[in-house]
Amino acid sequence: MLIGAIDAGGTKVLTAVMTETGKVLAKRRLPVSTEDVPAYFGCCAEMLSMCACDLGYVLGDLDGIGMNIPGMVTPHGCVLGSPSAGWQSFDARSLLAVALESNPEKLYFENDINACALAELRFGGADGNFIWLTISTGNGGAVVANGNLLRGANNCAGEIGHIKVERQDAYPCGCGGSGCLEAHASGVAIARRAAEAGLGHDTDARRCEELARDGNAVAQAVFAETGIYIGRALASAANLINPEYAFIGGGVAAALDLMLPAIEDTLKNEAVPQCADLKVMRTRLGYDAALLGAAAVCLNGLEKAK
Amino acid sequence: MLIGAIDAGGTKVLTAVMTETGKVLAKRRLPVSTEDVPAYFGCCAEMLSMCACDLGYVLGDLDGIGMNIPGMVTPHGCVLGSPSAGWQSFDARSLLAVALESNPEKLYFENDINACALAELRFGGADGNFIWLTISTGNGGAVVANGNLLRGANNCAGEIGHIKVERQDAYPCGCGGSGCLEAHASGVAIARRAAEAGLGHDTDARRCEELARDGNAVAQAVFAETGIYIGRALASAANLINPEYAFIGGGVAAALDLMLPAIEDTLKNEAVPQCADLKVMRTRLGYDAALLGAAAVCLNGLEKAK
Repeated sequence: MLIGAIDAGGTKVLTAVMTETGKVLAKRRLPVSTEDVPAYFGCCAEMLSMCACDLGYVLGDLDGIGMNIPGMVTPHGCVLGSPSAGWQSFDARSLLAVALESNPEKLYFENDINACALAELRFGGADGNFIWLTISTGNGGAVVANGNLLRGANNCAGEIGHIKVERQDAYPCGCGGSGCLEAHASGVAIARRAAEAGLGHDTDARRCEELARDGNAVAQAVFAETGIYIGRALASAANLINPEYAFIGGGVAAALDLMLPAIEDTLKNEAVPQCADLKVMRTRLGYDAALLGAAAVCLNGLEKAK
Repeated sequence: MLIGAIDAGGTKVLTAVMTETGKVLAKRRLPVSTEDVPAYFGCCAEMLSMCACDLGYVLGDLDGIGMNIPGMVTPHGCVLGSPSAGWQSFDARSLLAVALESNPEKLYFENDINACALAELRFGGADGNFIWLTISTGNGGAVVANGNLLRGANNCAGEIGHIKVERQDAYPCGCGGSGCLEAHASGVAIARRAAEAGLGHDTDARRCEELARDGNAVAQAVFAETGIYIGRALASAANLINPEYAFIGGGVAAALDLMLPAIEDTLKNEAVPQCADLKVMRTRLGYDAALLGAAAVCLNGLEKAK
């Protein structure tokens, strides 16, 4: 079986052709502007077509295609909005079908973080109750309860990035509020904290990680403080839904070990003992988590359609 | 069908014989000390026996019996502990079977707040995604996700009472932590706040409600402040799991209207817009919510055993 996977991000697009076991056969990655939505979808289609071409196939040879949306999207492919891409609502299904010249019935859509959680279920060996938390430019989340993705009443469950973790020195958040996890523990927040700590305004999360690993105590403190905030949000989640795991993904997940002691201390202080043994670990899916997610979305859809 | 229902609380026990539609045919309510566990279970059995006797039946005529535990309990009837009753772990199933001289297979157990959520599903017409929040001496919670009770990894989901809602002026909580919802928005917390506001040390939540309804601005402010804290905890829950409803039960739920404006304002400020339309309302089950819960636990168990 050949699966097309599209991970549509706010600044870049990844596409792949994969097997049903999650093996990547061909992959493309390009920076793509989100400004013109039809052009963006045209780029996605072109990139996926090139992946198929690399393998001697055409798009029509794919059994189905899964696409991650960096925002809110219904299971029917209706995008409700994406702050990170600057998108309002539109019908992604018809747009992608036109761009791919493909049968819209073979197309499946999901929020990008939900897709990661679905990949963790299908390819990562997870089950039961867990949280997926992305630490990247922002903080996205997904919740799996009783072995099923939790969508919530309005398809908006998993907004762990907007749980309040600071009230006294609360930072403004992109959502319009303040004190959210995303304002205190995203890649952007790490860079801000690094600058405030005197590490310079060009120290992003990656550079801060390098400094911390080189023994820079200020950079280490930046990650420890970030870990406290992640621990606070995870403690709220632990008390409420008692998950077994929190899988951490996104670029900053590479620095999880620098934050983990503070995360675990905070969990111990803020979650009831029966819920505090939440195991916090990097996703087992590696850097292809989101692409695997798009493939999982497609495979789930194909199985359901049978 | 005749169902036995036992709502075992930290200070009192309610028992009833009910129909499978949730109609209460006979009911007993007594204060019972939790100190001697076998004696406590003996009392429960005696009270249920009297309910059956009122109707001209004996315990053996009951098709099954459901019992709420005021603490953590596995679906197999193993109590893991109850802070409010002062209980450590023990096997409730064999204890109740001995006390009732009944077949242990006909006995079903559940945490009391989980039972209320199950009653909301069976008798209240609820489905989908909702939270149950008790505001009584303490704050207990339960979560229903995708139409199913969420138990979590250790059977401990729903500890919304221990979500942190205050960090600056955090009050100590019975759990050993501080700043928990239960420390700031339980019946006990309302009485504390009333005393601090000069309403006198004998002003409990009920009396504070009377004062507020008589136009006492200080008592009204006590409820408004309590509402802010409830709103904070519900906003965390809304962002994470996007439930449609929060059903409020327990004695202080009668004063929900006095807290609702503050709850709704806080939700609007602290939940992302797509999750902020959480509808907060009193349980539709009324004062028999917990007894209906015990009946729902029994009926679920009997259906599963078929």
